[in-house]
Amino acid sequence: MPDQPTSGEPRSARDSVSAQLLAELRELDLSSLLIRHDAGGAAEFVADLRMRPEVEALRERLDSLHPADIALILEALPLDARLLVWELVKAERDGDILLEVSDAVRESLIAHTASADLVAAAETLDADEIADLAPDLPDAVLADVFRALPLEEREQLRAAMSFDEDAVGALMDFDLVTVRPDVTLETVLRYLRRFDELPDQTDQLFVIDRAERLLGSLPLQRLLVSDPDLIVEAVMVEPAVKLRQDEKAELAAHAFERYDLVSAPVIDREGKLVGRVTVDEVLDFVRAEGEEDLLAQAGLREEEDVFSSVWKSFQNRWAWLAINLVTAFIASRVIGLFEGSIAQLVALAALMPIVAGIGGNSGNQTITMIVRAIAIGQVSVANGRELLLKEIKVSVINGLVWGGAIGLVAVGLYHSWALGLVMVAAMTLNLILSALAGVSIPMLLLRLGRDPALGSSVMITAITDSGGFFIFLGLATLFLV
Amino acid sequence: MPDQPTSGEPRSARDSVSAQLLAELRELDLSSLLIRHDAGGAAEFVADLRMRPEVEALRERLDSLHPADIALILEALPLDARLLVWELVKAERDGDILLEVSDAVRESLIAHTASADLVAAAETLDADEIADLAPDLPDAVLADVFRALPLEEREQLRAAMSFDEDAVGALMDFDLVTVRPDVTLETVLRYLRRFDELPDQTDQLFVIDRAERLLGSLPLQRLLVSDPDLIVEAVMVEPAVKLRQDEKAELAAHAFERYDLVSAPVIDREGKLVGRVTVDEVLDFVRAEGEEDLLAQAGLREEEDVFSSVWKSFQNRWAWLAINLVTAFIASRVIGLFEGSIAQLVALAALMPIVAGIGGNSGNQTITMIVRAIAIGQVSVANGRELLLKEIKVSVINGLVWGGAIGLVAVGLYHSWALGLVMVAAMTLNLILSALAGVSIPMLLLRLGRDPALGSSVMITAITDSGGFFIFLGLATLFLV
Repeated sequence: MPDQPTSGEPRSARDSVSAQLLAELRELDLSSLLIRHDAGGAAEFVADLRMRPEVEALRERLDSLHPADIALILEALPLDARLLVWELVKAERDGDILLEVSDAVRESLIAHTASADLVAAAETLDADEIADLAPDLPDAVLADVFRALPLEEREQLRAAMSFDEDAVGALMDFDLVTVRPDVTLETVLRYLRRFDELPDQTDQLFVIDRAERLLGSLPLQRLLVSDPDLIVEAVMVEPAVKLRQDEKAELAAHAFERYDLVSAPVIDREGKLVGRVTVDEVLDFVRAEGEEDLLAQAGLREEEDVFSSVWKSFQNRWAWLAINLVTAFIASRVIGLFEGSIAQLVALAALMPIVAGIGGNSGNQTITMIVRAIAIGQVSVANGRELLLKEIKVSVINGLVWGGAIGLVAVGLYHSWALGLVMVAAMTLNLILSALAGVSIPMLLLRLGRDPALGSSVMITAITDSGGFFIFLGLATLFLV
Repeated sequence: MPDQPTSGEPRSARDSVSAQLLAELRELDLSSLLIRHDAGGAAEFVADLRMRPEVEALRERLDSLHPADIALILEALPLDARLLVWELVKAERDGDILLEVSDAVRESLIAHTASADLVAAAETLDADEIADLAPDLPDAVLADVFRALPLEEREQLRAAMSFDEDAVGALMDFDLVTVRPDVTLETVLRYLRRFDELPDQTDQLFVIDRAERLLGSLPLQRLLVSDPDLIVEAVMVEPAVKLRQDEKAELAAHAFERYDLVSAPVIDREGKLVGRVTVDEVLDFVRAEGEEDLLAQAGLREEEDVFSSVWKSFQNRWAWLAINLVTAFIASRVIGLFEGSIAQLVALAALMPIVAGIGGNSGNQTITMIVRAIAIGQVSVANGRELLLKEIKVSVINGLVWGGAIGLVAVGLYHSWALGLVMVAAMTLNLILSALAGVSIPMLLLRLGRDPALGSSVMITAITDSGGFFIFLGLATLFLV
């Protein structure tokens, strides 16, 4: 067995199964298996391969894995090995696996799967799950799937697809168990025994009236600890939250975090129960959001499949680079204004990036802090002035401390006290500018009703770069040249 | 009622309750209530205030709120109003509220609460919850709490406190229901009815033998749908995962995400059941992790209470600024090497920040992508070379495209084709350098067994800044001056 990069810690059982298989797959000389891939169709090729005992063994091991584990393996393999594994997994699990893989990998799998197989895969899924796949499926496949659905699920699919990706409706599923208020718990218990299994993440039954309006929640825990002779109405509780389909998913996620929910009912404007949201969807949502924020900060539009083509990567990244080229060009023209001063005192060219850089860093700290405070409700338009004042004070201290330090160094290097003083003044002023911009940009976006995080890092860096060059070179031109 | 910043969308019930109260609290002239705060002690002052009908009304409304909602309100209020609300909430809820507030706000509350009250608050909590508070509690308080605990909980607290913040042990709680394998489900159902309520997030009972070794899991859902005459052993299932106390919490979180878990058992090296992890803790962990990453990228050590003092903010932010000052100084000295060339061709000073800036952006894209791919297991030391090759190709394309664009602009501005060519060459070389560093830094950290994300953004920017100045000014010195 190959050396595995474990730290000697025992892993959770399933985790190590998939990690081990992956390590073996990587060791396996897949290229020898895959050598004919270009020649024939993938299916034919795999039929051929299935004769080989090692491939049959691989198939059996894949069958024993959870779809999420297979998804992990698919994500970690280069394209040809990925398609081999994809062909080997049982067709009835294709749908579940497509749900689990990342967007980029899903695209690659769908592009290499026959339409009929995609239709078959989608038909194994619930309406809300098909809706999750829908944006990536070819239109013809989606139309076929739609036609094949029973009427009720067709309505559900239509509803689920009509919501924004960040609305509660997009997280919602339709798998729920409802009971009437006037029956005894004993009846409920007997009713539940008629199920083969309850929907995943069922921690409560929903109590509805004849018009399907939500009356209350019957948590399984209360059902279990209460006297079976009581009626539902006497035991049911008010749901901790009732969500609406068109609410922001972010709000629902906060409710799950605050009240430690496992599931929550979703109602429409008339109070009718239309579905539920479960914590597994919320967990995926919170994770995906955190990652999107990180990617967005680096100017990546979406998660990149590291095995995707150079061209795809270029497409994913070019927009941010183009924007930065424009802001860098503007900063460059600001410097251009002072070429005369730089020609006379060339030390300015060496010192100016320090002023701009520290301003950018400090501005990014301020803006991150304010955006975060807005998100958790600490900041409103009302207390903006108070915050601004505080940020300016922090900036003045930072400017005097760090500007002073680097000013002294400049004096040492260039033997000019005047130059040192200009450094201190420029640093302090640029830090004040960064505080002003760091507080105002998100507050302004908030007042305009936009996402305060939107492009804030680009804007602040553009301002502190151009501003820093202007302040430093301007002061130098006034007092030194 | 004051205008609320709602978008006309209905909110989930509880959410609007706390938002509304907060809006009213902000409108309320707290300063008039708080005018005597400095004079007397807080408790005395509040006793005085309680006479006032509006304060009594406020207290009643606070009592109706969930601790998490009170936490939100406390976080959103400036210090004196925060302390007023804190004094008004019922003492027996203090512990729950302290658990919910952010670190910075918790510190401010603990600093203003008498030791005896803190001990009383902690005593309302479970051992695992006390462990979460422990780092913020004064030593004397912690010692008192410890002495007051029953022996079993004392052991639990000691165990819970011994784990790293990012170990499974830190997420674990001890609230679980266990059953024996040889009893009937009917017996289990009767046993459960003896509880007033089951622990939160109970979706499964744990089946153990006499030595407390974990034999299996009895999901409530299976309990409910199965024939009550069956014995537990016939119905129980293998747990989806078994966690270990010393595993990384991150691994546990991934298991919850992949297998859509609500709870998971934690076992020790002998297979003995020691506790469980529930999805609400995992959700908080995932959220906190995403936020830490964002804060860390901006060089903030911890979440900042926006109402905290200027001095606290300075402490939170200075380290990153100091590091950046050092890297900016190094870049400045690189420019210093070429002062002679700049003096001869002052355009270089205006153009050099463009080369450095684009390199930094591109490097940050690469490193974010690689760190992310390492985290989800797409990248191992084995396929590093392949990735490096791809990143270099992307860099060459970006260099020729954007370098070409800005090179043409430089030709237009400074009428020198040679200068334009130097721009293109320097951009391309610096982007290749950024690709090299962007792939190598996280891979090297991975091989050294460190966190690949650790300070990667600082390092890449330092390299592309100094490298960009060196490449551009070096090429210019060779070919233009």
